[in-house]
Amino acid sequence: MRAQFHEQLEALFHDLAEICGLVEVAVTRASEALRTGDSSVAEKVISDDEVIDRARETLEEDAFALLSLQQPVAGDLRTLVAALRMVTELERMGDLSVHVAKIARLRVPELAVPASLQGTMETMSVTAIDMVRRVCDIIASRDVQAAIELGRDDEKMDQLRRASFAQLLDDDYADGIEAAVDIALLGRYFERIADHAVSVANRVVFVVTGENPGSVDA
Amino acid sequence: MRAQFHEQLEALFHDLAEICGLVEVAVTRASEALRTGDSSVAEKVISDDEVIDRARETLEEDAFALLSLQQPVAGDLRTLVAALRMVTELERMGDLSVHVAKIARLRVPELAVPASLQGTMETMSVTAIDMVRRVCDIIASRDVQAAIELGRDDEKMDQLRRASFAQLLDDDYADGIEAAVDIALLGRYFERIADHAVSVANRVVFVVTGENPGSVDA
Repeated sequence: MRAQFHEQLEALFHDLAEICGLVEVAVTRASEALRTGDSSVAEKVISDDEVIDRARETLEEDAFALLSLQQPVAGDLRTLVAALRMVTELERMGDLSVHVAKIARLRVPELAVPASLQGTMETMSVTAIDMVRRVCDIIASRDVQAAIELGRDDEKMDQLRRASFAQLLDDDYADGIEAAVDIALLGRYFERIADHAVSVANRVVFVVTGENPGSVDA
Repeated sequence: MRAQFHEQLEALFHDLAEICGLVEVAVTRASEALRTGDSSVAEKVISDDEVIDRARETLEEDAFALLSLQQPVAGDLRTLVAALRMVTELERMGDLSVHVAKIARLRVPELAVPASLQGTMETMSVTAIDMVRRVCDIIASRDVQAAIELGRDDEKMDQLRRASFAQLLDDDYADGIEAAVDIALLGRYFERIADHAVSVANRVVFVVTGENPGSVDA
């Protein structure tokens, strides 16, 4: 019974890693749409979000079935609840990618990000993609060290966000209100994607060690 | 055993309603800080957030104890997991109030919101406070009809947000980039508070009826 339970738990983490892979594709494509202004890529992010939503629902049902049928206690119970929380956060990261894609789509055939901010925004999106890619590996490998390292990288996104604000408020900024509003919101979306990646990584640390590496809800 | 379990579940919802009350205070004070530029009110929101965080931790431990000791199945299990999700969302609404308060604090002794946008922003914050107050009642009363009505009001916040964008992008807007960025982010924070209020209300519907009134993660 317990061996079977742990196999099922393993399958659940395998599914979590797969959903994470879908999120990685969403963040990558949303960033591409932002960089290129290609509306078909933006549309793909928006329409594919449904796949992530359905995958989350299936995983939730599997987790509830395990909770009901196996009645886990202690560590196993917390692992299952952590899995439920992780899938909620992964789905949210998908939603945030949709928000990014929608801003890109709204400005077609123009680019949402003016030339003066493209460097900062590109670094932000590369950072977000890298963090999502790493958290997918962390879910699959249950690598605590890698998870703790990911937590340390969160500061990088905060710095990029501050840099984008500094550029917007600089006297040289001349790209208008609409672009400033887009940049502020895009920065917020990428920051939240990074926050969730760190939070999911922290939950993996908790699942493996039974201890939190700090507050997971930054 | 089951009667005792339902008493404990009742106590958990009582605690959820109390935490919701703390969130209502936070949103109300954050709005006041925004309206008045009173830094001590903003500070209070920021420092009191810890109380919400601690209350969440206590409620989570209680819920885990119930899950472990009582081994609920079916509806009871889903109710407990729903309670865990609700407290996560309530805590998040507290965090969003802190974000609002921090923007108010950053602009002291000025007001973050320029005169031209104060009407819209005040309506946004009044709407958010009203939605939070109602969701607290819904948690306490388990009133399904009120919960469904709250869901319908979500559109109101979206309309206010679109109105704020229209004002920012109007040729008459003359309050600069910094205020525009603040308004865009404040609008996002209030919108997320409203989203979470609707989501918590939907979870109450689920707990009472066993059915979702639609997607809860808008």
